[in-house]
Order: sequence, then structure tokens, then C-alpha cells
Amino acid sequence: MINKIPVILASASPRRKELLEQAGISFTIMPSSAEEKPIEDTPNVIAENLAFTKANDIYQQLKKEKKDNFIVIGADTIVHYNNDILGKPEDEQEAYDMLSMLSDRTHQVYTGVCIIYKGESGKQVEIFSERTNVTFYPITSYEIKNYIETGDPLDKAGSYGIQGPFAIHIREIKGDYNNVVGLPIAKLYQTLKSMNLV
Amino acid sequence: MINKIPVILASASPRRKELLEQAGISFTIMPSSAEEKPIEDTPNVIAENLAFTKANDIYQQLKKEKKDNFIVIGADTIVHYNNDILGKPEDEQEAYDMLSMLSDRTHQVYTGVCIIYKGESGKQVEIFSERTNVTFYPITSYEIKNYIETGDPLDKAGSYGIQGPFAIHIREIKGDYNNVVGLPIAKLYQTLKSMNLV
Repeated sequence: MINKIPVILASASPRRKELLEQAGISFTIMPSSAEEKPIEDTPNVIAENLAFTKANDIYQQLKKEKKDNFIVIGADTIVHYNNDILGKPEDEQEAYDMLSMLSDRTHQVYTGVCIIYKGESGKQVEIFSERTNVTFYPITSYEIKNYIETGDPLDKAGSYGIQGPFAIHIREIKGDYNNVVGLPIAKLYQTLKSMNLV
Repeated sequence: MINKIPVILASASPRRKELLEQAGISFTIMPSSAEEKPIEDTPNVIAENLAFTKANDIYQQLKKEKKDNFIVIGADTIVHYNNDILGKPEDEQEAYDMLSMLSDRTHQVYTGVCIIYKGESGKQVEIFSERTNVTFYPITSYEIKNYIETGDPLDKAGSYGIQGPFAIHIREIKGDYNNVVGLPIAKLYQTLKSMNLV
């Protein structure tokens, strides 16, 4: 355990949970159900706003309970291609359409992160986002159908998970890999370090 | 299972095993104990030579046993920085020195891969290497010592594993992430596909 102060993760994502665990950060989970209709904005701002909304939702709950000395972490990941934000697919057809569109192209993944630290002497908030460029190999219809059959795409922004069976279609990335998985654990750690919290 | 022909992995690395499994490739393991003192050469050639040596070692064994219709995959990963090849550290002091040297810098990771396919009509060999640039954040002595205490560095070229507790120190990569883990699974799959073997 590398954190001195209790951490609360405002997300139910098993991938974020795993990344925090790997980093040696000890935490509990309080998933935020706060949602915000993204307004038209740049993708980094959209991701940061959503991360703040989630972290603040949990922060407000804990404040009502008169809790003190804690860190809330909120995060949100979005996929951006050709001026479009790609969310989780509604169904298999939409997953197919997204993956066909991204085949043989480079797109951007943004994860916004919000850290709210409540200490005795007050509150400290840090918000950032991290961008990773992801390039796919050309993918055939047959390969996309095979991948959709695994069930992997349906709970994932952009319809793919970089860390599972889809890895065979990733030509290269530029940036932080874990940012694409759902949490830029390195930048998160470095930020906590600069806040004197690890 | 996506391969039509039995695959033999000429490596005992648990990380390579995991990546092949994730890709849906079915295989058995026959670790090669072949070693070759690397001669002075470019890092991609060194990695390719070692991969070939390992795959060929197992291929020759299977040939003696009159086996037919199989694919052997050999791989070797090396870390390259400032004209030096960094292997696995001999001890904790060497791990410390390597990580101090790589702190706040960009280095290269090369994995060489050799595929030997033996079919009824003969033998087909493909050899390639993949390069990924890896950039570390600045790392303090205290952080390096903490990391060495986890025991993670000792069996790893360059003294770190990108996929474990060291992830908090990786600023960015350019290339294939799994290449740094130990097997460029995407390029391997694409090559098997071009050979009509998946």
C-alpha cells in the first residue's frame, strides 16, 4: 500500500479496480451513478467533466456523512474519431459499424481523471486528461464478427478492449496503454505524488 | 482456437503463454534451452537471431521424431539503450543501476519472432522483429528500491515489467505494448494470417 490516506474509487469498472490494485494503491469502491449528457466540446474537456461529475457525486455523499481525510478518484474514458465521440455500442450491429470504421485507422482515446482530496485543512482538487493514439491493422468482416461473438465489445467505449482477444488487431499505440484500458495509472500516481498523497 | 495447425511455443515465459492464450491461439509448450552469445550487431538482428535459434532448436527435435504438420514459434526480447543491450539483471544492485539509467529517458524494446511451419509440402520460415519505444517518468531512488523489493525485476530484461507494479513509472510508449511484455502478438497474428495459418 503506497497511499497514506484512504482512497475511494468512484467507479465500478473491474479494469480500473485492477489497475489501482496493481499500482499498490489501497482503496474501497463507491460507484457513482451520476451521468451527464456530454455537451459539444473538445474530447479532453468532455472526459474531464464526466470524471469531475462522478468524483464530486461521491464527495458530496461523504461530506453529508461528515467524513474527513479521504481521496475520491473519478474517471471517464471516451473514444474519439473523426470529430465523433464513440460510446459503448447499443447492440452488435453498432459494434460492427464502429469497428469497421476504426479498421486500418488511428483514433484517440481520452481518459479524464478527477482527484478530490478532503483533509483537515480543506479540499484540494486536481483534474487532468490523458490522450493515447491507437492504430488498428486492417480488420476483415469475418474477424470483426468473430470478435463480437466473444461478447467483449458490448460494455466498452469504441466497442473494443485493448487488453483481451482484440489485441491481435492493434498495430501500435502512442501514449499510455493503461489509459486505453480505462485509467492512466502512471499520470494518476504522478499527480498523487505531486499532491504529497503517496 | 483460431489456428488450424498445432502450434508449439519454444519458450517457458508465462507472459508469452498468457498473450498467446488471450489471442485465442491453441498451443503446447516445449521450452528451448538453446542459448547464443549475441554477437555485436544491431538490436533487431540480435533479437531475430536468438528467436531463430530457439525455434530451430525445437524444430530439429521434432524433425528427428518424424513429426509433421506443426508450427514452432520462438521469441526473444531485448532492451536497448544508448548502444547497450540490457539483459536480465544479475542481482539487485544491477537492477538498481539499470533502472536509474533508464529513469526520465526513452529506450527501445525489441522482440524478435521466428515462425517455422512444417507442412506436408515442406517448410516455411518467417522471421521479424518489432520495436517499441518506452519512456519513463523520473524515478526516485526510494521508488526504485520499493520496486526492487517486490522481486519483479530479477527475471526481466531491462529490470522491469511494464505490466505490473512498475506501470506507474511509464510515461508513454510508441509501438506495440505486448511487444514490451514479451511477444508482439498482433504482428505475430498478422504474419500467421499472411501465411494462411490462421
